[in-house]
Amino acid sequence: MIIVMSNNATEEQIEGVLNKIKDKGLEGSVSKGTEKTVIGAIGDERLLDHELLESLPGVEQAMRIVKPYKIVSREWRKDDTVIDISGHLIGGDNIQIISGPCSVETPEQMAKSAKAVKDAGVKLMRGGAFKPRTSPYSFQGTGFDGLDMFRKAADKEGLPIVTELLDVRHLDKFLEQKVDVIQIGTRSMQNFELLREVGKLKVPVILKRGMSATISEWLMAAEYIAAGGNHNIIFCERGIRTFETYYRNVLDVTAIPVLKKETHLPVIIDPSHSGGKAWMVAALSRAGIAAGADGLLVEMHPNPCDAWCDADQAINPDELKSLMTELTAIAKILGRTISI
Amino acid sequence: MIIVMSNNATEEQIEGVLNKIKDKGLEGSVSKGTEKTVIGAIGDERLLDHELLESLPGVEQAMRIVKPYKIVSREWRKDDTVIDISGHLIGGDNIQIISGPCSVETPEQMAKSAKAVKDAGVKLMRGGAFKPRTSPYSFQGTGFDGLDMFRKAADKEGLPIVTELLDVRHLDKFLEQKVDVIQIGTRSMQNFELLREVGKLKVPVILKRGMSATISEWLMAAEYIAAGGNHNIIFCERGIRTFETYYRNVLDVTAIPVLKKETHLPVIIDPSHSGGKAWMVAALSRAGIAAGADGLLVEMHPNPCDAWCDADQAINPDELKSLMTELTAIAKILGRTISI
Amino acid sequence: MIIVMSNNATEEQIEGVLNKIKDKGLEGSVSKGTEKTVIGAIGDERLLDHELLESLPGVEQAMRIVKPYKIVSREWRKDDTVIDISGHLIGGDNIQIISGPCSVETPEQMAKSAKAVKDAGVKLMRGGAFKPRTSPYSFQGTGFDGLDMFRKAADKEGLPIVTELLDVRHLDKFLEQKVDVIQIGTRSMQNFELLREVGKLKVPVILKRGMSATISEWLMAAEYIAAGGNHNIIFCERGIRTFETYYRNVLDVTAIPVLKKETHLPVIIDPSHSGGKAWMVAALSRAGIAAGADGLLVEMHPNPCDAWCDADQAINPDELKSLMTELTAIAKILGRTISI
Amino acid sequence: MIIVMSNNATEEQIEGVLNKIKDKGLEGSVSKGTEKTVIGAIGDERLLDHELLESLPGVEQAMRIVKPYKIVSREWRKDDTVIDISGHLIGGDNIQIISGPCSVETPEQMAKSAKAVKDAGVKLMRGGAFKPRTSPYSFQGTGFDGLDMFRKAADKEGLPIVTELLDVRHLDKFLEQKVDVIQIGTRSMQNFELLREVGKLKVPVILKRGMSATISEWLMAAEYIAAGGNHNIIFCERGIRTFETYYRNVLDVTAIPVLKKETHLPVIIDPSHSGGKAWMVAALSRAGIAAGADGLLVEMHPNPCDAWCDADQAINPDELKSLMTELTAIAKILGRTISI
Repeated sequence: MIIVMSNNATEEQIEGVLNKIKDKGLEGSVSKGTEKTVIGAIGDERLLDHELLESLPGVEQAMRIVKPYKIVSREWRKDDTVIDISGHLIGGDNIQIISGPCSVETPEQMAKSAKAVKDAGVKLMRGGAFKPRTSPYSFQGTGFDGLDMFRKAADKEGLPIVTELLDVRHLDKFLEQKVDVIQIGTRSMQNFELLREVGKLKVPVILKRGMSATISEWLMAAEYIAAGGNHNIIFCERGIRTFETYYRNVLDVTAIPVLKKETHLPVIIDPSHSGGKAWMVAALSRAGIAAGADGLLVEMHPNPCDAWCDADQAINPDELKSLMTELTAIAKILGRTISI
Repeated sequence: MIIVMSNNATEEQIEGVLNKIKDKGLEGSVSKGTEKTVIGAIGDERLLDHELLESLPGVEQAMRIVKPYKIVSREWRKDDTVIDISGHLIGGDNIQIISGPCSVETPEQMAKSAKAVKDAGVKLMRGGAFKPRTSPYSFQGTGFDGLDMFRKAADKEGLPIVTELLDVRHLDKFLEQKVDVIQIGTRSMQNFELLREVGKLKVPVILKRGMSATISEWLMAAEYIAAGGNHNIIFCERGIRTFETYYRNVLDVTAIPVLKKETHLPVIIDPSHSGGKAWMVAALSRAGIAAGADGLLVEMHPNPCDAWCDADQAINPDELKSLMTELTAIAKILGRTISI
Repeated sequence: MIIVMSNNATEEQIEGVLNKIKDKGLEGSVSKGTEKTVIGAIGDERLLDHELLESLPGVEQAMRIVKPYKIVSREWRKDDTVIDISGHLIGGDNIQIISGPCSVETPEQMAKSAKAVKDAGVKLMRGGAFKPRTSPYSFQGTGFDGLDMFRKAADKEGLPIVTELLDVRHLDKFLEQKVDVIQIGTRSMQNFELLREVGKLKVPVILKRGMSATISEWLMAAEYIAAGGNHNIIFCERGIRTFETYYRNVLDVTAIPVLKKETHLPVIIDPSHSGGKAWMVAALSRAGIAAGADGLLVEMHPNPCDAWCDADQAINPDELKSLMTELTAIAKILGRTISI
Repeated sequence: MIIVMSNNATEEQIEGVLNKIKDKGLEGSVSKGTEKTVIGAIGDERLLDHELLESLPGVEQAMRIVKPYKIVSREWRKDDTVIDISGHLIGGDNIQIISGPCSVETPEQMAKSAKAVKDAGVKLMRGGAFKPRTSPYSFQGTGFDGLDMFRKAADKEGLPIVTELLDVRHLDKFLEQKVDVIQIGTRSMQNFELLREVGKLKVPVILKRGMSATISEWLMAAEYIAAGGNHNIIFCERGIRTFETYYRNVLDVTAIPVLKKETHLPVIIDPSHSGGKAWMVAALSRAGIAAGADGLLVEMHPNPCDAWCDADQAINPDELKSLMTELTAIAKILGRTISI
């Protein structure tokens, strides 16, 4: 860490900072410039408390020079992590599309959805049994009954399932139903208790980016899971909150090359929740894959106009099929594979 | 709700919208303007699904005209709600300052803090036993031991306690320790499971605004608590996330008059987490009270340079005392009372 | 326009609103719902002042239902506008890459740059003679001398030139130097005097999006140019300002399909200024073209480490060449053409 | 400046950085930590190009340690600058309220406004003759005729005038009309040509913050004016753009203590444009003064419901009077004076 002293810092204040650094087992080195005195702390920077140092008298600024994340970082592991989702690979050269309805409604809807997913050549199915809704008066999901319908419909087509976990108390039932991928939603990205619990498992986890989470906070959230022992983490960019009101969120494609640089773990995007409109999905999906994403989490409904939730963002089975064709071609240009 | 059709919508599409409206028991009324056809839905708008309507063919936009929140709204209750916190009132003409350290560290630190709180004339004490931290490697709070230290130190000075609940599984212990006010932190504002649980109690709840939550989402989060039966809700503005990097968050003072208009419930501000620096606390506190806030949640540490967490944002006991003097004078100008 | 009255609006207040509507030559129609009274204004909504209506007693909200932009809108012109830039087409099926250095430095640098642009198969060249810089102490561009160097270097390779106009007083010299495309920078998007001046010309204009401009404001800025008679407008998305600090801006790819829907004019992206780092350029460029952009404005420097300005965001000639190959392949998948 | 090398930087790359530093006349000092090699550049950091250094091979990050602004900084001048506006002081202990209508409409409206301003005890009058409007089809101001009406009405009451300059070509007429304070609007904060021109004068300048300008960019914009020789600069916070849609902008009160720390120049706020609604003005005004602002720029209209522009944000003469009473009392608590 680099500690910049204010222009009128006294010798005593410099001494104070050096003592705090030594207390933590690091070494301090003072260098006086023409305008500022700067102290470098040599040793394991993670042992120092950035804010505590900034609160000391005479300190203007403390600057980190080491990344705060560790296990999830590219420095920890140079090669791409390839995750095996019940037989389907994601990461490295392997791109996976994950599709299905926003929420589980009825056995018929799920059967149709599963068939459409399979027919489009998609290997993994999504569906929400528990829905986090802004209003307490909105439909909150079909719950464990929905999870059961989902499992059955997916099993019939041989599809692994991806579903969102909202509450630590639901975890046992999720494991009982052999959920193949646990999704941590945008509102839960910093629900640290939840992260710690899924960190104890081996089940792959999709970690959605918080609505206004920085790249660094997102990586640190993943570090919570990784620190528990579960390294099967997939990042999912789902749009960030900005001043723009025309669309729900702004899909942050820049996050894709940045995460590929900072972490060895796979990165996918959600083109449905980001834009919030079905007619934007194809363009955003292509942009994501072209930018280097390892997959998509895309909503498809057998009959979008009848969906119980987020109806206007789901594409229909035919649109999913043509999307798969375009994406396969783009992947090929980048030397990657979408197996359909 | 008002549904605006696109310029080339067909008669059949207009019929389709009218049918969906009727399905929900509302009445539709079509009016054709010079450029657009507009459909008004008459009846209880909350029964309609905004997004479903927007997904129908020929629809350009669906616009809500009724507020989505109910129990927390000023229309539901015209007069200010005054909440009784173990004998101390907040709301109406009553302003309450809540102070104490960011985190509970040791019995000595808590004893000193409680004394300083009392000496400054502050009636309610804050302290964090469980700390939500960005990094899994940072200090995570002293947990239930900390809660116990807090209860004892506060009891000695006769101060009710305010502390953050992170995990539904902690609730029993919180009730056992007779926590006087449960704080829901910024990262949990949309942890709907947690909101539902505190909604079943009668204990007052401080609901912090999510880092990038809109006013409407915040009111809806409170509605989750209120819908469960607990109407003792205090909103706490704690700074929002913006592009500015000089300070941690931007304290949104405009939220104060806006909430006072939209809801009958008390509104306080957190001048410590918003700016993130002790030297900003007095200015932000004065701004909050001057804008009409019903109170403050302000960090004070007996020795800020030794704090274990967020050291640079806590003021010291002397600063708390002079702040109380200034705030009392400002409150008086507005015809309000801070009892010290 | 739809005017929603507040719950306790009086008959007199409703009358007041109706009078204001009639004053402007529109017709008002009152409809009373179960909770709200709503007034529809029938006629040319653009004649009404939205804010004035909202200021009237008893009015809760006034909602526009017609788009405020006209000439630039897709409703005004259904087909894609194809713009001819000194013989090179952009729009419709035609994609154009525009490349060159951030700033004009020396005749040698410009000669090398022009050659590299040509060699990569790029048809249009960019370069800044006047540079808007955050600091008055930074390099401000080589000015008219630079413009002259640029013209000469580009002429030698037969390349049309694109350069930024900062000051209305520079316009005559720009026309004298036969600048082929005038660029309006992000800081000038709402410099309405500048927009009006370029609106009087026929020279194509690249209108960069303001750093935090909404889609609607951006379209309205273009409307200023179009209203003057110049319909040769190209939108350029260059990243928006958000809370993220890892990268300079967030490239808003969602703006691409949205603009394609709202306007008939071409849309390009700037992958260099958005991310701010050369290593992100290829990924962002691919994302832009895959999302449907009509072109790129991409910085290339013959020797990036020696650039006088924005050094870390320019790619080198070899990188430009391989980028062109990838982009040509992606364009083909979408049924479009980059002629190289 | 501190340059952090990446983990696998070679000796040659370190040498490369040292050479660039030496080229600019500074001295480089290498220190090797346990994880990172760090290079300190000793000498005048402003001579180094931050981005150029970041573009060099092997460099991970370059961090500034000296503030980029100079003349406007508190380090350059310790004491508060007090500016004399045609006999009225602002800065130090002196608070000034500036009031008047959003736009100049008619001689009668201006006469009434000037009288109301004077009657409320306000010493300085605002009014817009040239209006920057989002739409080319909206009212654009009464122009030079309006400026003339403004001058006459203000002269009759002996009030100095504050008005916005949009175009460098208008400057001569502004000087002819003896405009007492030139306002640079939010959209022009980085119109560097305009800043340079007002930098050549001695007339006080109100520099509004750009809609999404950082504190640092804002200070640098002021530095453009100061570098030209005009040190009579007043900062005006007018709300920043965020994700919130309930109100137009978020008044950033934190900017007040921050600017007071960073610069010796006065800081005022605009409570009218920030919230955008008349009913928010009093609360925001009080918050601003309580946070330490040196004044307000507040819209007042003799008959808000008839205003031609921004009608819903102007308060009326009576509201201005009671506001003055409240503000005077708050100022007194802070040991400051509003002379009425």
